[in-house]
Amino acid sequence: MNTTDGVFRYDARAKATGRATYAADIKLTGMAHAVPVYTRFVRARGLRVEVEAAKAAPGVLAVLVAADVSGQVRYGQIEPDYPVLAQDLINFEGEVIALVVARTRAQALAAAALVVEEAEELPPLLDPESALAPAAPLLRLGKKDNIVNHGKMRRGDAEKALAGCELVLDERFSTQFIEHAYMEPEAAVAIPRPDGVMEIHGSMQHPFSTRRFVAAALGSLLAGVEVFNPPMGGGFGGKDDTAALVCARAALAARAVRRPVKLVYDREWSMRESYKRHPYKLHYRAGFGADGRFRAASIDMLCDSGAYTSVTPWVNWRSLVQCCGPYSVADVRTDVYAAATNNVFTGAMRGFGSPQVNFAVEQLMDMAAERLGLSPLEIRRINMLTQDGETITGQKLDGHVVSLGQVLDAIVRATDFERKFAASSRGAARDGTLYGIGLALSYRGASLGAEGADFCSSIVNCQADGSVILDAAIHENGQGAESVQMLVLAEELGIPLELIRRQRSSTSMIPDGGTTVATRGTIMGGGAVAVAARELKSLMARTLAPKLGVESDRVVFRSGRVGVEGGPGLSWEEAVAAMFAERIYPYAFGTFRAPKVSWDEETGQGDAYFTYVYSCQAAEVEVDAATGAVRLLAMTAAHDVGRAINRALTMGQAYGGMVQAAGMALFEDLAVKDGRVGNRNLDRYKIPRARDVPDLRCILVENADPSSPTGAKGIGEPAIELMAPAIANAVYNATGLRCRDLPIRIDPKELS
Amino acid sequence: MNTTDGVFRYDARAKATGRATYAADIKLTGMAHAVPVYTRFVRARGLRVEVEAAKAAPGVLAVLVAADVSGQVRYGQIEPDYPVLAQDLINFEGEVIALVVARTRAQALAAAALVVEEAEELPPLLDPESALAPAAPLLRLGKKDNIVNHGKMRRGDAEKALAGCELVLDERFSTQFIEHAYMEPEAAVAIPRPDGVMEIHGSMQHPFSTRRFVAAALGSLLAGVEVFNPPMGGGFGGKDDTAALVCARAALAARAVRRPVKLVYDREWSMRESYKRHPYKLHYRAGFGADGRFRAASIDMLCDSGAYTSVTPWVNWRSLVQCCGPYSVADVRTDVYAAATNNVFTGAMRGFGSPQVNFAVEQLMDMAAERLGLSPLEIRRINMLTQDGETITGQKLDGHVVSLGQVLDAIVRATDFERKFAASSRGAARDGTLYGIGLALSYRGASLGAEGADFCSSIVNCQADGSVILDAAIHENGQGAESVQMLVLAEELGIPLELIRRQRSSTSMIPDGGTTVATRGTIMGGGAVAVAARELKSLMARTLAPKLGVESDRVVFRSGRVGVEGGPGLSWEEAVAAMFAERIYPYAFGTFRAPKVSWDEETGQGDAYFTYVYSCQAAEVEVDAATGAVRLLAMTAAHDVGRAINRALTMGQAYGGMVQAAGMALFEDLAVKDGRVGNRNLDRYKIPRARDVPDLRCILVENADPSSPTGAKGIGEPAIELMAPAIANAVYNATGLRCRDLPIRIDPKELS
Repeated sequence: MNTTDGVFRYDARAKATGRATYAADIKLTGMAHAVPVYTRFVRARGLRVEVEAAKAAPGVLAVLVAADVSGQVRYGQIEPDYPVLAQDLINFEGEVIALVVARTRAQALAAAALVVEEAEELPPLLDPESALAPAAPLLRLGKKDNIVNHGKMRRGDAEKALAGCELVLDERFSTQFIEHAYMEPEAAVAIPRPDGVMEIHGSMQHPFSTRRFVAAALGSLLAGVEVFNPPMGGGFGGKDDTAALVCARAALAARAVRRPVKLVYDREWSMRESYKRHPYKLHYRAGFGADGRFRAASIDMLCDSGAYTSVTPWVNWRSLVQCCGPYSVADVRTDVYAAATNNVFTGAMRGFGSPQVNFAVEQLMDMAAERLGLSPLEIRRINMLTQDGETITGQKLDGHVVSLGQVLDAIVRATDFERKFAASSRGAARDGTLYGIGLALSYRGASLGAEGADFCSSIVNCQADGSVILDAAIHENGQGAESVQMLVLAEELGIPLELIRRQRSSTSMIPDGGTTVATRGTIMGGGAVAVAARELKSLMARTLAPKLGVESDRVVFRSGRVGVEGGPGLSWEEAVAAMFAERIYPYAFGTFRAPKVSWDEETGQGDAYFTYVYSCQAAEVEVDAATGAVRLLAMTAAHDVGRAINRALTMGQAYGGMVQAAGMALFEDLAVKDGRVGNRNLDRYKIPRARDVPDLRCILVENADPSSPTGAKGIGEPAIELMAPAIANAVYNATGLRCRDLPIRIDPKELS
Repeated sequence: MNTTDGVFRYDARAKATGRATYAADIKLTGMAHAVPVYTRFVRARGLRVEVEAAKAAPGVLAVLVAADVSGQVRYGQIEPDYPVLAQDLINFEGEVIALVVARTRAQALAAAALVVEEAEELPPLLDPESALAPAAPLLRLGKKDNIVNHGKMRRGDAEKALAGCELVLDERFSTQFIEHAYMEPEAAVAIPRPDGVMEIHGSMQHPFSTRRFVAAALGSLLAGVEVFNPPMGGGFGGKDDTAALVCARAALAARAVRRPVKLVYDREWSMRESYKRHPYKLHYRAGFGADGRFRAASIDMLCDSGAYTSVTPWVNWRSLVQCCGPYSVADVRTDVYAAATNNVFTGAMRGFGSPQVNFAVEQLMDMAAERLGLSPLEIRRINMLTQDGETITGQKLDGHVVSLGQVLDAIVRATDFERKFAASSRGAARDGTLYGIGLALSYRGASLGAEGADFCSSIVNCQADGSVILDAAIHENGQGAESVQMLVLAEELGIPLELIRRQRSSTSMIPDGGTTVATRGTIMGGGAVAVAARELKSLMARTLAPKLGVESDRVVFRSGRVGVEGGPGLSWEEAVAAMFAERIYPYAFGTFRAPKVSWDEETGQGDAYFTYVYSCQAAEVEVDAATGAVRLLAMTAAHDVGRAINRALTMGQAYGGMVQAAGMALFEDLAVKDGRVGNRNLDRYKIPRARDVPDLRCILVENADPSSPTGAKGIGEPAIELMAPAIANAVYNATGLRCRDLPIRIDPKELS
């Protein structure tokens, strides 16, 4: 077991020693290699692909085009629009027009250059505003407009309320395309098994969704595809649609050549084809009373959905729920539009629609505070949601502890915020550098919420020697989800971690538990394990109570013992053996079903999530007055995670989230021009380097959530949604300059 | 789906086209190869193995001896006596003294020749009678005698009853060592996974028992070993102990060299090391009344257990239960001894102790009939167990249809037995050949019976599109067990077979369901599937009844429809979708527990099995008067299998069983001399060839068993336990010569 000082990560040794087998590491005898062939167009129609020359090249086993797809060509979680291989239309530069399969990757690459593409090139539509204009060419198959989504919130009368406000801020903000930059690009191995099942090993966040894509492409039953996910080098929301289609392509190739096929992306293919975080344009009119009350908001957002739908409507929905931050606002009118363009498409990314709105709202709060003579803390304390408060979606927060005050106070204390904020440079140079501090506050729904029915299952399977095999339908993305599941099981059963093995699972071993997204890993996956463990304990207590001579409800599982506190009991191993002697398998299947939620599409009102994570983050920055360069001095997080199952991993999530958000704030700038990504590798697409990372701190606030079986809520996405506005507020605190567009760029001339 | 004219065998295409991947077919990159090094002794002590020269040979990665075993060196299902690598003692010529692991098999073989073995040679003990003599050297570690087992039956007063019998037959019989002669010799691949789990793919009948062996050898938890069984080329009871140790050796090697290791046996290794069917010496004193009643029996049996215990006591137990055939006998005294020797060890083989006793009893019945002026049919009808009859173990047969009369009548009709028996040669030549017919009758307990707690589980996991993944803890040995499970599921759910996929299962995916032996594949494995399917139907009926507007107990599953006969209903796919909409997974785990049985070790009385298969088989032979050669003309079987789930596979089992038994009767003769197997390959160990196989017929009698969830009982072992005595009786019918020793050899001089 890889435990050190309470840090448990069962896969750490394998990963640290290089023995962990990622999808790209899989080597099988007779395995062929596939490579994608990309379009040379950004927008075109009448696609014709000539593959004869490629087919004749050395080592080539097959060259597939859309006509070779036996099942569905187009697929999507919401709209079946994204083609596994391009068919007739080219919608963006990431379209794969052919797949070359050869004995070696080098042979496949050489043959790929021989594929000839003909099509009628069309002028690309690159700007979301233009895409919504009446005269715009229609990009979506069979649709009458380019509106991928229109989300609404209608609460009270925003215009009337704004008219009565003492202060109305009218501000525009914009955010950029963001690349997920997972360490491991897309990879898949497809194995056509003798039993007729197509077996997939791929880097993906959602094996079950991948199975749907693969089965659709093959025209197969779901049970005819078995998907495994080997260790993953990160996903951050990005290993869903594209990763699933990479798996589907490997499967199509494997079926065609009747042998295993590996398809591993290089970084340039990955950055060219994979979806990005949605760039948003946000226009807020935010009304405040003289008392600092946030009274009304009228909000328009437009985001670029790019070439395909992906999960854009769900991303927009998160933006709606959080469009006014964690504050009570009585009158809100919001419209969020997503437009189809010929840019790279956009989809899920950690944060999922909230980093964009938080960037606007949390700066607006600071701007309003300054105008009203309040501190950033005062204006937040005046407006933040409190126990039994009502969110802008009309939800009463009565089921759990609303801890915005706790996380805010924690940050204030940990950073000595008030002193530092007052002592900041505010534009006055200090040793040639300007110092500032800023913070941001949020509430965020954990799990899918009203996006979809949320349930997840787990299987606890005890062996005759007391060792336990654990499966759960939430899979490891590299974040430690499976280690958390093992910790939950050990605690529930009162047994040492050493007795537990996490099953190397597949889509055929456990029912679909949904995808590893939406801060649902711990709350849903850990919750499912707790439910299954409790089913097992109940079965064991009922079966063994007569042997123990006690009522079954008095049997507890603690410290490797099953029995009554201070009374009769058995060791865990004896208890398991007694179950086998009674011919009752100590085996349990359990499902955690999230409490029901609700949503009204017309008004944007409803109980959006069954629980929320409350978070506050602060940034301290130094701005070089001569160059405008922003340097991070410290980032501090406080999150009410409900309960931290694994403190080290929880804090690690916070650290990673802050650094990734700092990338969005200061570093990352995808150069999308004329529909082409200009910086398709990490030498030119800059993410934070180790030397850019300042001191990181994380304060874990724990108010166990009554509706979560483990008490835990989550941390994955709360960790990333606040640092961009916190940095922007800190930059303002340092320089007096407001940064309304991402990434933040300071023109030193404005400082002089 | 591989269905033709009602024959369903889902793996047929893969096997027929050579795509099925047997353990020996597995190829992995970086895989090393292990080979065993055998002792040159038959009996020795003070073993010292020098491996330095072998270690230095080209390509060698490791050479393992007993001292390298981190866990248990000796293992066994009953007695932990069989060493994974020989330690100090050599007990038979099949001991593996070292394991050489090299990059290639050829390198490993070359290095194996360099291993040097030193030990003090001891005179071997080769005869079971001598082994039981007081002065015999003790062969069993830490034991005070060479008695591996002593089974007893004490019913009434046999000696007193015999004294009152009109006819007492005092006869001795013997049976030989039999090689299982599975097509596929032992093979295993062990993969040390990065997650710390040792993964095994091997040819074995019992993955769970194999896991116990492997975990013990490694000193690992059960959950730390995951065993898969790929397609198997036959087992016949022989792929248990030895096969498991082959897997354990591969695992030890894999751990030592930290990479996958393959260990594939050649035929000579297999025949040298693997256990055989027990040779028995049987001494019967059987008493009959003038009316033909089988009144008393006094029986002594001695079998050779060879070098190790294996499952000898359980095999002996079957011999006890069937020692008087399917007849009511009031007074019985039986002692069965198993002796340790330095011969090849003996263990499970299809039939498991009954072919030996049947060979005696069913000839005795014919001998008594002749002496008493009765026909073979008359004496059996007088004595056979009837409804509500009592077995020699004191069991009342009141729970199912006792159909000995039906199977006997079926054989009589199908073979025109009475006319042929009367028209036989009885020693008089007809065209230089002698014709004869004979039959034999049996009752046989299905499943483990009082040998052990018998329960087995299944998992039915429906996917969102209505396809279903099926797992069950009884594994495929090549006999079609998994196809039967799929048929049971299709029938229970009323859905087409095309929707079902059998999970490629492992010991980590489902609880231990016991081994695929003891005619338990269909009754236990199929039963478990039926129980799980009924759990699923109950869950679906309860969940969907409100939607259907009916009581849940009126919901039936038939013809792809879920609903009320002639009333409201949903298609299967709609019903599954409705379950997901209710957030209730259509997933079920079910366990079939065999009804309880009992046994008294001192008296040999009890309810040995919860149900019995009733069987009759007949042979027709031609004996060449000049040479004594016996030629089979026809073999006919009638079995009450309860219910035939898959008629073609059921009949195939009967055909195979009869041919395998004919091998025991006429062909197979393992040349064990001085403790060495002389004929270690199939060129000299003769099994029946295709041209030896006569016309085969099988009549399936179906009296559904009320205690079996599917109504099915079984066929695997009943099929093999009768043909040797049927042939011996036919030979007598043809020649007037009694064959008391196997294999049957006719001296032509006795015919003249």
